[in-house]
Amino acid sequence: MQLMRIGPSGDERPVVRVDEHTYIDVSDLVEDYNEAFFAAGGPRLLREAVTARRASEAIHRFGTDRIGAPIARPHQILGVGANYRGPGTHAPPPREPLVFSKAPNSLCGPYDPVRVPRGSTQTDWEVELGIVIGTRSHCLADDAAATAAIAGYVLVNDITERSFQKERGGQWLKGKSAPTFNPCGPWLATPDELGDTSDLRLWLDHNGTRRQDGTTADIIFSPAHVVHHLSQFMVLEPGDLINTGTPFGAGKDLNPPQYLSPGDTLTCGGDGLGSQHQTVTAAL
Amino acid sequence: MQLMRIGPSGDERPVVRVDEHTYIDVSDLVEDYNEAFFAAGGPRLLREAVTARRASEAIHRFGTDRIGAPIARPHQILGVGANYRGPGTHAPPPREPLVFSKAPNSLCGPYDPVRVPRGSTQTDWEVELGIVIGTRSHCLADDAAATAAIAGYVLVNDITERSFQKERGGQWLKGKSAPTFNPCGPWLATPDELGDTSDLRLWLDHNGTRRQDGTTADIIFSPAHVVHHLSQFMVLEPGDLINTGTPFGAGKDLNPPQYLSPGDTLTCGGDGLGSQHQTVTAAL
Repeated sequence: MQLMRIGPSGDERPVVRVDEHTYIDVSDLVEDYNEAFFAAGGPRLLREAVTARRASEAIHRFGTDRIGAPIARPHQILGVGANYRGPGTHAPPPREPLVFSKAPNSLCGPYDPVRVPRGSTQTDWEVELGIVIGTRSHCLADDAAATAAIAGYVLVNDITERSFQKERGGQWLKGKSAPTFNPCGPWLATPDELGDTSDLRLWLDHNGTRRQDGTTADIIFSPAHVVHHLSQFMVLEPGDLINTGTPFGAGKDLNPPQYLSPGDTLTCGGDGLGSQHQTVTAAL
Repeated sequence: MQLMRIGPSGDERPVVRVDEHTYIDVSDLVEDYNEAFFAAGGPRLLREAVTARRASEAIHRFGTDRIGAPIARPHQILGVGANYRGPGTHAPPPREPLVFSKAPNSLCGPYDPVRVPRGSTQTDWEVELGIVIGTRSHCLADDAAATAAIAGYVLVNDITERSFQKERGGQWLKGKSAPTFNPCGPWLATPDELGDTSDLRLWLDHNGTRRQDGTTADIIFSPAHVVHHLSQFMVLEPGDLINTGTPFGAGKDLNPPQYLSPGDTLTCGGDGLGSQHQTVTAAL
């Protein structure tokens, strides 16, 4: 099942994607894809309703409606740094997941413009596999329990201002939290829909040039391991989003480094997760 | 005006404190002291209703109801590190506020037990002045605009696991985010109620021994400066909580360092902000 939210920012309605052209509206059944939805086992309940509607006439064509993030603003957005093997890797690799946070209101839709913050000179891209939590989780026993706590996966672009991240006071969140810094979607793929996550290709083009072309096969700490690990330190709430890190090819990895300017474009995608497209704009 | 929430955890109702013994119930007027309440200018609207009720019989005595945090779980909890002059100060002092995040669900009531996380050996205390945001804020122009964006102030105990904070992967939030790690309250004091915040005494006793006894006169970056600064990097939402840092005397500052064990007690307070008391318990 592929969950999507369509409509104006802040007023999206929940739908289930059928294919590239069509969807099933479920806004009469579900208020939103939010904490309450996931906590109530929403995806399981929705599946039954959707199966019935697939056989009916309740299928709509995508029109010109905006595509929003496939989840409502979560309780928290966490990220994992330095989580890929390969060129550009930190040496030595981290012994435990290197975790940071992003302001939850950095979440936006997959085709919304990305705004370069005021005073920014180093706004950068990071295509990633994102995890959405399905079950309230604290001190999970093992990776199997963590796998069972995952509601699904999303494509995210973990936009980052490098100088704000590293030169403005020590903790990364200053460079991770600006509005429009977490394009997400177009859909949430449930685990059964996405299947094996251990070798998903992730790619990103900057102004039409391929900059990132990696695979989750190079992830150091798997999604299940990350969820298990995080649950030892905090309670993960249903609907929480975890960005799992990016393969080589962020702007900072290039020689010379490349950063975003108004007018630039980003296009990125991932196996089974769809693709995103953003135009970069100046700060408001 | 002093805002409080009383009742079982997760089912608190909003009230306005009259004095040590009595309160006015406003749960028929206000759903909760949450993002929507602050965004709608709730404190201002409430003031009129409360003035009318103060003159009536609608005053209740505090009974045995639990006192909750005075705000609902916020969109984000941020904290400022190394923000006091004096002994134990980082050298050199930070040039800009050193900002970290805490999981929003670490919030709890001022008398709730504090749970030492599994595997913890260095759970520590930090009495602090907390800021609650009143107005959605991005790129505020100056400290005056920041002052106008503050809904009020709270007492917080910014509980921290030092080894999780510093030895488990680089970013502080791993040591800041466990459940019960942010006792808050007993009340939110509106700015007019609290008055000048530039010399508020903050104190904390551990097992009856005075460990912290400081004043906000030693703050490096004032509340207004912190709010102004943060708004350059992210959007602060109504109801967001910012812990402004702690004076000397956290367990890590002592020689030898002292950390919390089940059975320990913490009592702390601040001028105009009331006092808290916590019993430390083992992990669930």
